Amino acid sequence: MDIYLDNSATTPLCKPAVDAMYKMMTETFGNPSSKHKPGNDAFDALKKARRRVADAIGCNTEEVYFTPSGTTANNTAIFGAARLMGRRGKRIITTSLEHPSVKEPMKRLESMGYEIVALPTNRDGKFSLSVLRSALTPGTILVSMMLVNNEIGAINPIADAAAMVKNSNCGALIHCDAVQGFGKLDIKPSKLGVDLLTVSSHKIHGPKGAGALYIKKGLHLPAYILGGGQENGMFSGTEATPAIAGFGAAAAALPSPREQLAKTKKIRDDFIGMLGENNRIFVNSPADALPYVINISIPGIPSEVLINYLSDNGIYVSAGSACKKGRRSDVLTAIGIAPQRIDSAIRISLSRFTTAEDMCALYTQLNEATKIFLR
Amino acid sequence: MDIYLDNSATTPLCKPAVDAMYKMMTETFGNPSSKHKPGNDAFDALKKARRRVADAIGCNTEEVYFTPSGTTANNTAIFGAARLMGRRGKRIITTSLEHPSVKEPMKRLESMGYEIVALPTNRDGKFSLSVLRSALTPGTILVSMMLVNNEIGAINPIADAAAMVKNSNCGALIHCDAVQGFGKLDIKPSKLGVDLLTVSSHKIHGPKGAGALYIKKGLHLPAYILGGGQENGMFSGTEATPAIAGFGAAAAALPSPREQLAKTKKIRDDFIGMLGENNRIFVNSPADALPYVINISIPGIPSEVLINYLSDNGIYVSAGSACKKGRRSDVLTAIGIAPQRIDSAIRISLSRFTTAEDMCALYTQLNEATKIFLR
Repeated sequence: MDIYLDNSATTPLCKPAVDAMYKMMTETFGNPSSKHKPGNDAFDALKKARRRVADAIGCNTEEVYFTPSGTTANNTAIFGAARLMGRRGKRIITTSLEHPSVKEPMKRLESMGYEIVALPTNRDGKFSLSVLRSALTPGTILVSMMLVNNEIGAINPIADAAAMVKNSNCGALIHCDAVQGFGKLDIKPSKLGVDLLTVSSHKIHGPKGAGALYIKKGLHLPAYILGGGQENGMFSGTEATPAIAGFGAAAAALPSPREQLAKTKKIRDDFIGMLGENNRIFVNSPADALPYVINISIPGIPSEVLINYLSDNGIYVSAGSACKKGRRSDVLTAIGIAPQRIDSAIRISLSRFTTAEDMCALYTQLNEATKIFLR
Repeated sequence: MDIYLDNSATTPLCKPAVDAMYKMMTETFGNPSSKHKPGNDAFDALKKARRRVADAIGCNTEEVYFTPSGTTANNTAIFGAARLMGRRGKRIITTSLEHPSVKEPMKRLESMGYEIVALPTNRDGKFSLSVLRSALTPGTILVSMMLVNNEIGAINPIADAAAMVKNSNCGALIHCDAVQGFGKLDIKPSKLGVDLLTVSSHKIHGPKGAGALYIKKGLHLPAYILGGGQENGMFSGTEATPAIAGFGAAAAALPSPREQLAKTKKIRDDFIGMLGENNRIFVNSPADALPYVINISIPGIPSEVLINYLSDNGIYVSAGSACKKGRRSDVLTAIGIAPQRIDSAIRISLSRFTTAEDMCALYTQLNEATKIFLR
């Protein structure tokens, strides 16, 4: 039996998602814009999915805009905010560890004359509120911050940061890429205090091909993808109804984040306890990281070698972006991990379906690996 | 048994597409970018789908870029071309009857200082090659033309137009929105002579949530959706593997366009023959239109009334964009249809699964409608 521990990359579909998709694929094929029964049925399915995702996020249905992916949601949030606010100022604040779907739009905006300020990462893996405070100037139009770092699981202080931005009276919009936190933490936008929030289906056991952008009621963001005006004009293109229905079902199947977090924390803590028995294995994730993400190193075994060894034994983990394009991981460097440990880092990412037995099996194999590869 | 005749809006999924998607949803859930078995399996499925779509289009696999929809493909083609060529000129030629996913990007480019020239529509429903010739000036950077008009089925002379653009030496890129022609006509880009071509999955009995942009080898279009660099950097975002696999299966299941066209032409011609027996029914589509699209009118019965009547009787057609936002259809006006006929126009759109019996049942109901609503 294979053990999948790369849930930050993508997750297997839960049964309710598969069932909802299968129904859409075989029965409810209409175009939600069509004014006949097949169209109306598809429209109703879309409405149901929107309610489910809104409930899971903790917002109103009219604040949920379905997108093809978290990436398209991030692109639209960032380019839309820049377009909307560009006349008021050109300064955008972000963090140094964003996902490429935030980083790359920022680079393009920079090439278009915007000023991009990336908050550095502290030893705890987070950005610093005091640095944010001094970065907030009157010309700031957007602050975009990820909730959970996908490589080590560090949780940024979004609510405090958002309050600081609001109190500064600079009038900047606040965007949060919550893809890695959705279903695992309470991401209710009104609690976080954000105007825009990105989530994705395939990180919560829904299908690839659906995401959502929360847009606070009353905020008239310009669209980035233009056409037939679907999703209230925000995301044109015929709605991906099978994926959206699957997303809705996966959202409805999410357990209470708080209870699940406690269970996962126990599994994580027990695993880290086990790792303590082997002094060749080091934990890179901070103690207060999201327990779903555990970054570890076995110095002397390069990440790729260990990943392949585990894969051959039916256990699937990733290198995170530890060795992206030959460059050492920014986040591991920022939190003070030594180069040799960075080169051997792997990311173990759990889901709510991960069991203590899975982690025991992983520990056994990690132990084996130290015997095989290090002597 | 319901009869679905709104295939230009969307199509029911064919069985191979459902099967391919189900397999992806239940077995091959990995992220194609992941370097372990689940990831490799997903990567292989993506590769297989790309080969299938490339074969159906008639191009190389490395020229096929998967997109979330035809709309995103059109946005990327148009904004990408404008960005790439913007320093050479600002003039873009398009036609007056494009899909909103072409029209709206053109409007935004106009607001950004580009000059948009929309070729008018002739009485045959097509644009005129001589008008195109005089519109082609040295500063023209893009010519974007749809292959098949989605409302009446008129087929534009893309190959001749593309040859004219190339011969003019203006250096403009040529884009064709072939969404309504894919699977029904030979759309091989090298035969049409285009640089960019858009297709969509859900118009060929594949799922909603996938499309593709053909980009001619050697053309380095800038991306519009930015992030993790999927699809060779052109369309970032985790690939919608279930929808893409379904798209691939639907593409592989397409019969020869030529043979299917002959069969559909026979069904269309027989249907139009039947309509001749009722002098209250008028055909709006030109005789040389794609036989998959039949636009008709029963003057005196408003489009909506007839659509609802048919829907109540289990037959599903659409008004095309006959009455978009209260405005009379541009294409029906352009081909000289009288206002009363436009107000009663309906679009009947066939698929390869449409039978002569379906059309007989439709004729019977149309006949009934004339008796009920007109006396």
